[in-house]
Amino acid sequence: MDFAATLQRHVAQTEHGLDRCLPPADARPARLHTAMRYSLISGGKLLRPVLTLATAEQLGLTGDAAVPAAVAIECIHTYSLIHDDLPCMDNDDLRRGRPTAHRQFDEATALLAGDALLTEAFVILARHYADRPRLAHALMGELANAAGSRRLIGGQMEDLLAEKRPDTTAADLEFIHLNKTAAMIEVALVMGGLCAEASPAQIEILRSVGHHLGLTFQIIDDVLDATADTATLGKTAGKDAKANKTTFVKLHGIEASRRIAREHADAAQAALRSLPGDPSFLTALVASMLARSR
Amino acid sequence: MDFAATLQRHVAQTEHGLDRCLPPADARPARLHTAMRYSLISGGKLLRPVLTLATAEQLGLTGDAAVPAAVAIECIHTYSLIHDDLPCMDNDDLRRGRPTAHRQFDEATALLAGDALLTEAFVILARHYADRPRLAHALMGELANAAGSRRLIGGQMEDLLAEKRPDTTAADLEFIHLNKTAAMIEVALVMGGLCAEASPAQIEILRSVGHHLGLTFQIIDDVLDATADTATLGKTAGKDAKANKTTFVKLHGIEASRRIAREHADAAQAALRSLPGDPSFLTALVASMLARSR
Repeated sequence: MDFAATLQRHVAQTEHGLDRCLPPADARPARLHTAMRYSLISGGKLLRPVLTLATAEQLGLTGDAAVPAAVAIECIHTYSLIHDDLPCMDNDDLRRGRPTAHRQFDEATALLAGDALLTEAFVILARHYADRPRLAHALMGELANAAGSRRLIGGQMEDLLAEKRPDTTAADLEFIHLNKTAAMIEVALVMGGLCAEASPAQIEILRSVGHHLGLTFQIIDDVLDATADTATLGKTAGKDAKANKTTFVKLHGIEASRRIAREHADAAQAALRSLPGDPSFLTALVASMLARSR
Repeated sequence: MDFAATLQRHVAQTEHGLDRCLPPADARPARLHTAMRYSLISGGKLLRPVLTLATAEQLGLTGDAAVPAAVAIECIHTYSLIHDDLPCMDNDDLRRGRPTAHRQFDEATALLAGDALLTEAFVILARHYADRPRLAHALMGELANAAGSRRLIGGQMEDLLAEKRPDTTAADLEFIHLNKTAAMIEVALVMGGLCAEASPAQIEILRSVGHHLGLTFQIIDDVLDATADTATLGKTAGKDAKANKTTFVKLHGIEASRRIAREHADAAQAALRSLPGDPSFLTALVASMLARSR
C-alpha cells in the first residue's frame, strides 16, 4: 500500500465530489453560494471525508457510493469552523492560511453560509441516496446526532463556557474533546461503514476507532497550539495559552499529552485491525495524525 | 367545525410535542438546551406545525403520527428567527414580545442554539420515523430542500442584499417572499401530506396551497409592519419604512397589497377544496391569515 498515493486518491475523490455535489457558485444567491464554496473548497486536510472513503474501501466497497456521505460530513465540519470563527465565538481572522469567511465576505454572509452548509449536508444525503431510503435514513440520523446539541454543538458550547471558567477539570475537557472533536470523526467512520453495509457489531468497532482517533487528534491539536507557529499551522497559534484556556497540555504537560495521544492511537489501530479488509491505509493514517505538524 | 377549538387542539398537540421531542433543559450543556427551549416554546403562533397537523387530518390521518414532523418544522422556523435577530443580521431586541435569544443569553449561545435547533429537526425526524425509513427519507429531503441555500436561507440572503439596494424590483421581492417565507409554509403542508400518505398529485396541490398562503402571509406581514404598533405585533413595528426597505407595500401601496393578498388567499382556498377531506378548518385558517392583526 502506497500511503501517499492512496491518501491523494481519497482527497481527489472528495474534492471532485465537493465540486459536483454543491450548488454552482452562480446559483442565486451567488454571494451565498460563492461563500459556501470559498470555505468548503479551501485546501483543508479533508480528514473526515478521507476517513469515510477509506473505511468504506477497507470494508469492501468499491466505486464512489460513499462520496456523497463524505461530502456531507465535510459540509458539517466546514459550517462548524465558519461559525466557530465568528466574532461572537473565537473571533479568528485566519483559517487554512486564508481569511476566515466573515473577513472575506461579512458576518451575515458567513453566518448564512454556515447555516446553508449544515442544511446542504442533508440535501445531499437525501438526494444521492434516494434509491436506498434505509441507508439515507441511517446516514442522516447518524449525522444529525453527531452534529447535534449533545455532541458537536454541545462540545462547542462547553468549550466556550470553559474559557470563562478557570477551574475546568479533566472530566470537563474530556466532554469537550469527545463531543467537539471525536463526534465528527466517529460519524465519518460510521457513515463509511454504513455505505459498505457493515454489521451493527462492526459499526460499534468503528465508533470506538473514532473515539480513540478523535482524542488522538484533539490532544495533538493542543500540543501543536502550544508548540508550533502560525505560518506552519495555517491558523493562529498560541491562542490557548494567550486565553489562559484549560487544555490537555495545561493539565498534563506536553510529554504526557504526547504519550496519552499515542495510547489512543494504538487503541484505534488495534480496533481497525479487528475489522475485515486491509487496515494498512487507516492504521497509517492514524500514525500520521500522531506525527502531524499542522 | 369549531375553528377556535380545532386550532387550539392543534396548538396544544404541537406544544406537547415540542416539550416531548426536545432534549430536557438540564441535559448537558444546560445553557444550550435552556436557550433552545426558551426560543422554541415561547407563545409563537405555531402556524407551520398547525398547518402540518391540519393537512394530515384533512387527508384522513388520525392520531399523532404527524406531530414529530410538525415539531421539526417549528425547530427550523425558530432557528431561522434566532439567527435573523442576531446583531449581524436584523439586530432585533424583541421577538414574540420577549427579549430575543441573544439579548436573553448572549450572541454565542444564540448562534449555537440556532445551529442546534436546525440540527435537532433532523434528529427528531430520524428518530420518530425510524420504523418508516421511506417516510423519514422523504420528510428529511423535503425539509432540507425548503430550508436550504436556494430557498429559506437564499431568501434571507437576498433580503439582506435588497436592504442595501434601493432599486429592488418586484421580481426580486417575489424571490424573497417565495423563499424566505413561502418555502417553509409549503413544506409544512407537504410534510403533513406525506405523513398522511398523500399521492404525488396531492402533494403538488399542497405545494400550490403553500405558495399562495405564503404570499398571503408575507404581504400581510408587510402591511402590518406599515400599519400596526409594536405592542400589538410583539415585535418592532415600522422597521421596513425606517430602513427604507423595498416592501410589497412600498411597491404597490396598502390597498393594492391587501387586494393581492386576498387573491392569493382565494387561490389557496380553492386548491384546498380540490383535495379530499373536509377543508373547512384550513380554508378558515387561510381567511384568518388574511384578517390577522399580528
